[in-house]
Amino acid sequence: MTVHLVGAGPGSVDLLTVRALRLIERADVLVFDRLVEQEVLDLAPQHCERIDVGKRPGFSQSQALINSLLVSLGESGKTVVRLKGGDPFVFGRGGEEYEALHEAGIHCEIVPGISSSLAGPLSAGVPVTHRGLSHGVSVVTGHARDGAYVDFRKLANADMTLVILMGVSRRATIMTELLEGGLEPSTPLCAIENATREDQRVLRATLGDLADLDVHSPAVLVVGDVASLRFTDESFLEQIVDVTHT
Amino acid sequence: MTVHLVGAGPGSVDLLTVRALRLIERADVLVFDRLVEQEVLDLAPQHCERIDVGKRPGFSQSQALINSLLVSLGESGKTVVRLKGGDPFVFGRGGEEYEALHEAGIHCEIVPGISSSLAGPLSAGVPVTHRGLSHGVSVVTGHARDGAYVDFRKLANADMTLVILMGVSRRATIMTELLEGGLEPSTPLCAIENATREDQRVLRATLGDLADLDVHSPAVLVVGDVASLRFTDESFLEQIVDVTHT
Repeated sequence: MTVHLVGAGPGSVDLLTVRALRLIERADVLVFDRLVEQEVLDLAPQHCERIDVGKRPGFSQSQALINSLLVSLGESGKTVVRLKGGDPFVFGRGGEEYEALHEAGIHCEIVPGISSSLAGPLSAGVPVTHRGLSHGVSVVTGHARDGAYVDFRKLANADMTLVILMGVSRRATIMTELLEGGLEPSTPLCAIENATREDQRVLRATLGDLADLDVHSPAVLVVGDVASLRFTDESFLEQIVDVTHT
Repeated sequence: MTVHLVGAGPGSVDLLTVRALRLIERADVLVFDRLVEQEVLDLAPQHCERIDVGKRPGFSQSQALINSLLVSLGESGKTVVRLKGGDPFVFGRGGEEYEALHEAGIHCEIVPGISSSLAGPLSAGVPVTHRGLSHGVSVVTGHARDGAYVDFRKLANADMTLVILMGVSRRATIMTELLEGGLEPSTPLCAIENATREDQRVLRATLGDLADLDVHSPAVLVVGDVASLRFTDESFLEQIVDVTHT
């Protein structure tokens, strides 16, 4: 009895790991949500049962329901692959699913995936670290979980690149707190909508523009000196935003 | 004329992306260093030239030499794959190689890889984020580059998980600065030597033990509440370190 908890990466088949590909190709059951693309699901064998927990009533709001589903599937003895967008341990709640399976005595193998927090910036040509510009990278969500919000003032560090997932709806607060923490309004900012997808759209601006930025979810926000770089030769819709502060 | 700048992930073939695998399988030239394992190199076709820049005299010390090699290979019209351990943009100096190629008019495609900063903790069962324990993750190097050191006092944030690459030799300073910044000596710490390799060794301790910890490079250090978790059913050499402070 094994459930494979597998990072599906940012979406395309190309960015699956070889291990993820092999597991999907021999899965009896695939459990996934809206973060996983159709072309990935199409890799599974014909007999494979595909369960979209994003569409089951109640499941998208309840990690407990997903956990019990995984446990009962694990007990069935089938080859169960639980696909998670990005990496299971980077805001993927993979730890919670592991805990539920482990407590039920079901073996759980965890396979890393390409995290969208790194692949998103890369797809826009933004290196999250770069010699002379950044000592490292911090990844956080702007979205509340458990009712607890991240204090962005503590993350205002000009030596570090800051990557914010699910931050669009709280962008005004994020901007205010980063400025209060000491970052300059002129700090470069890059927003990548629908990162790594065909309809990817990249906006270049500065931190001071963030509150008024015309950006839509899902988007990855990158704040820091590296955000002005564009290390890609691929072409996609990109715009430099000039927000006039009124 | 295209040079493919490809993240090779933490080492094993299993954790290559599908895109990386396909590129390696049709490469005329592979350029790599010691971070890439033999089984990955064996995937290339027989005629493929394999260039280990880690072994060429002077190359391991000189990014400029690597850059010119890539430019001249790119100009040859061959299918050139530059493999980098982990992800090209997470301390991979991929940006510098991109810049050199771009300036020389050579098309450069960048392919993300599984970053060792995330796969290392995962392989020890440490989720870098976990509900209630961590708001996010910061990744830095302890190793100096450009003579500039990271100020770890600014990274002492109990809400965040801290992952430190190349930090073993400076571990006493790192410990001191994190304590000065306000982290508790009892903060859980996990050190993963030779992460994801067969000889992986995991040490569990606390931040207050770090200076005296018997840990050897290469190792990934994880500091934060998540470091005490062990979300893996795989067995490997692991020890709980109890350092008696004298």
